[in-house]
Amino acid sequence: MEKLFVIKIGGNVIDNEAKLEAFLQSVAEVPGKKILIHGGGKIATRIGEQLGIQSNYVNGRRITDAATIDLVTMVYGGLVNKKITAALQAIGVNAIGLTGADANIIPAVKRPVKEIDYGFVGDVQMNAKSAVQLGWLLQGGMIPVVAPLTHDGKGQMLNTNADTIASSLAVALSAHYDVRLIYCFEKKGVLEDVNNDDSVIRLITKEVYAQLKAANRLFDGILPKIDNAFAAIDQGVKEVLIGEAGDLIQNTTDTTVGTLIR
Amino acid sequence: MEKLFVIKIGGNVIDNEAKLEAFLQSVAEVPGKKILIHGGGKIATRIGEQLGIQSNYVNGRRITDAATIDLVTMVYGGLVNKKITAALQAIGVNAIGLTGADANIIPAVKRPVKEIDYGFVGDVQMNAKSAVQLGWLLQGGMIPVVAPLTHDGKGQMLNTNADTIASSLAVALSAHYDVRLIYCFEKKGVLEDVNNDDSVIRLITKEVYAQLKAANRLFDGILPKIDNAFAAIDQGVKEVLIGEAGDLIQNTTDTTVGTLIR
Repeated sequence: MEKLFVIKIGGNVIDNEAKLEAFLQSVAEVPGKKILIHGGGKIATRIGEQLGIQSNYVNGRRITDAATIDLVTMVYGGLVNKKITAALQAIGVNAIGLTGADANIIPAVKRPVKEIDYGFVGDVQMNAKSAVQLGWLLQGGMIPVVAPLTHDGKGQMLNTNADTIASSLAVALSAHYDVRLIYCFEKKGVLEDVNNDDSVIRLITKEVYAQLKAANRLFDGILPKIDNAFAAIDQGVKEVLIGEAGDLIQNTTDTTVGTLIR
Repeated sequence: MEKLFVIKIGGNVIDNEAKLEAFLQSVAEVPGKKILIHGGGKIATRIGEQLGIQSNYVNGRRITDAATIDLVTMVYGGLVNKKITAALQAIGVNAIGLTGADANIIPAVKRPVKEIDYGFVGDVQMNAKSAVQLGWLLQGGMIPVVAPLTHDGKGQMLNTNADTIASSLAVALSAHYDVRLIYCFEKKGVLEDVNNDDSVIRLITKEVYAQLKAANRLFDGILPKIDNAFAAIDQGVKEVLIGEAGDLIQNTTDTTVGTLIR
């Protein structure tokens, strides 16, 4: 099968114009087929404040009320998504900016209300047709640029975590491509010693992971990321890479410098 | 060649929830290949006021400054475009919401500064590849839903009139399809007597148009619309229809009730 890179970039890069420009240049240089998923960044909070939309938290979790889903649809699906798309077009990448509603690439259901009502938050429910639609765009030479938004199939946009969207798309597309899912974050990779940036663990297999956990050698915050990586692999993704945005090109080769999980 | 309907809907329908819902239902019922172009509506002005963005006019023409292009990118390209896309998906139409930057479907140049600096306004400059990209989406069973935004190919989004986008897309696609360009507006069609809604002129050819103008029988405001329609026809569009949003389905048949121009 043909290779496909599914690349997720977080808000910290989006908020920094110089970093974003350098990152998009790297995306342009990644050979072959690729999809970019972007987070939101702080601009939604800033515009929300100007519009008098209160950030609403319950037990530390942000609630997406009606005003907030409109806000993030505007900011993530409009401003941020089109800024990235236009910037990529300017450097020769045939980007096409999308949300999960567009061509129904990411169907979702509104999260059921249990202890907490999260509001307009979507739990992804991919179907085979969604991957076919994305495959059609890729086949047409387009590079999908996906905002962290889904929809419920009944006309309602929903807010969905960008990491989740990246892994859902990677899993769905693994039926058609050899997928490497790349999470760009602020560190070079998973570190054995959080205070030492040179302590990147270059390869984590299930065996290695069990040993590292048993020895209590991993920073707690990284465990969910690794668990999610293995979940994606169990569902067909070939490999997951966690690394720094600045190392993107290197991390698309066979000689990766971040943490390769497989 | 296969038929294609290029349908433009204005802000008056977008601002009215019941009208919009009925209109989108009609779009769903239009058989075959179609593209929808939407205007902006008043919501950008309302949100702009909340954000403290002043509407700026010179000689009665709105100026698109840096804050305003970000505003309309958010509102037209994000909020309005995704609301329409999600609503169409909910009724079984495989809509894909786009701006001119997405897949470079509408390249443009920033309007040159002469007497007035219009700011970030784009004059469309279609190329053959843009139509091929749109054709690829149509071939994949997708219905493009296009916001009134273009880009300069250097990373800058631009504001462009929705009527102009509709005719530019119709012209570009006429190389591949038999295009009927449909402008939905508030009247049943071009009226012989502006005070009589039953006085629709059902067919305007160049000969008829010359006679009507010579006899001073047309309302001045409609002349640019008819001129633009003939300009599109001279560039390959098969026919142009001007009619009411509520008559959309009828106006896609051979027995139109609006004004057919050809």
